[in-house]
Amino acid sequence: MELKQYLKERKEFIDGIIYNFLPDKPAYGTKLYEAVEYSLTVGGKRLRPILCLAGCEIAGGKLDDAVPVAVALEMIHTYSLIHDDLPAMDNDELRRGHPTTWKKFDEATAILAGDALLNRAFEILAEWDFSPEIKIEVMKEIGKAAGMRGMVLGQQCDMEAEGRSDVSLDELKYIHKHKTGALITASVVSGAVVGGANKESLKALRRYGELIGYAFQIVDDVLDVVGDESKLGKKVGSDLENNKVTFVTIFGVEGAKKEAVKAIDEAIESLKLFKKEKREPLEKIARFIVEREF
Amino acid sequence: MELKQYLKERKEFIDGIIYNFLPDKPAYGTKLYEAVEYSLTVGGKRLRPILCLAGCEIAGGKLDDAVPVAVALEMIHTYSLIHDDLPAMDNDELRRGHPTTWKKFDEATAILAGDALLNRAFEILAEWDFSPEIKIEVMKEIGKAAGMRGMVLGQQCDMEAEGRSDVSLDELKYIHKHKTGALITASVVSGAVVGGANKESLKALRRYGELIGYAFQIVDDVLDVVGDESKLGKKVGSDLENNKVTFVTIFGVEGAKKEAVKAIDEAIESLKLFKKEKREPLEKIARFIVEREF
Repeated sequence: MELKQYLKERKEFIDGIIYNFLPDKPAYGTKLYEAVEYSLTVGGKRLRPILCLAGCEIAGGKLDDAVPVAVALEMIHTYSLIHDDLPAMDNDELRRGHPTTWKKFDEATAILAGDALLNRAFEILAEWDFSPEIKIEVMKEIGKAAGMRGMVLGQQCDMEAEGRSDVSLDELKYIHKHKTGALITASVVSGAVVGGANKESLKALRRYGELIGYAFQIVDDVLDVVGDESKLGKKVGSDLENNKVTFVTIFGVEGAKKEAVKAIDEAIESLKLFKKEKREPLEKIARFIVEREF
Repeated sequence: MELKQYLKERKEFIDGIIYNFLPDKPAYGTKLYEAVEYSLTVGGKRLRPILCLAGCEIAGGKLDDAVPVAVALEMIHTYSLIHDDLPAMDNDELRRGHPTTWKKFDEATAILAGDALLNRAFEILAEWDFSPEIKIEVMKEIGKAAGMRGMVLGQQCDMEAEGRSDVSLDELKYIHKHKTGALITASVVSGAVVGGANKESLKALRRYGELIGYAFQIVDDVLDVVGDESKLGKKVGSDLENNKVTFVTIFGVEGAKKEAVKAIDEAIESLKLFKKEKREPLEKIARFIVEREF
């Protein structure tokens, strides 16, 4: 398989079905609906749904079965970006070259659009036509990863670390494990739950998710120092400007690269219990994370 | 039964157990946890959980069975207040005599505390030790009522109606049916689902919830004109000040009172299929809604 083509096709697949999971336009308050739709449209690589579908397939499941879960994950990711971009949080006016939701609409609508998407994700999981037991397992997994034991906590930690130079490696790992790692891990694992994975497979995929999540953040930090703005589509150097403690501050650029490669090697190693042809997408996705720029 | 005593006991019951449904304090980012706890502590009458428990009991269920649902409902209600109070929304600094969450902490923490509570509500429902089928039914009911087909949409509609003098009765009803009515209705209905209510009972209780939700808002509008600030614990006259179209604008004070009483009479009528001793709490709660001040 050719990874670029695979990622492109999967992204297009998600882009093609995600709007089907929105309710009908309401009689009043249509701006909410427009803000939700807009936020989903200016979305990125659809990494979480792609990992979810791949997790389902590696476990022997059918891609279609995991679609509502993949969509719910992307909605949760999207809501988190809408809220993170708010003036009271990161105060970002642009994301991937488009005005952020609060900038395009207004702050109140952006807050509500985020709330709507988080809520909608759980509605989709509840209404999904699948075994109730599996639905509950998936909701537990995603709920824990997204909430105050996961992503929301990570964002809070990240804010509390802002401007502090005494952030330890332990704290830094804790921040990113929760802020980005948890939902990435839940994406692979929840897909695998749908696919019928056994305990051993789930454990391996959880390990895989945690490691690629970790590597992903390290690479982000490295690219903020050595990346090419035009390729990344975002400003570099902002961590240094904000005196932010990152994996580069702690490991140095070369040390951080090595740490990322080590994590990816381990992630790939953890897939070894799956058949070679089955594990190819997740292996290549892992490799891609460290190779995207260096 | 004496309603005041009943409401007091139920409120104390909820106050006594709601914190048990929070996760352990995290190693970092503890301000999030504190903001969540604070927001739950300065809570009000616990109307939604009380309705949920009463809905369970009228359907013949055991109170304890519905506790996680009651808690989840209160968390969703609390998150909605946190977000509604934000500067970008209603910009309220005080609620029931206490600083609002954003004022007590900061805006970013308040946004995240709201997100955390909404997410936590669904986690609680997913992790609740009960039949998966019933859990799914309850999540569908609450998810629809809370999200972009319910409460979140209602808040958006309310904002879009602000400052407009051309709001029709149809639009006004639509706003409040979604903004407050939907979650009140879901509280009674989801409790009844847990209690094992049949289709006919659910229909009757849904009607009851919609009608008390409607009456509740009319009474709120009336009290904003004729209420006693010291008894209400909040400023009156703000609707007039903001040129807000309310049920009083449309019906007049006396007309609005009549409309509320009519709705409550119908709500009580809809309970007639339950045995007399079973329906007493919901009857008295309904009556209380219109009698709280006039």
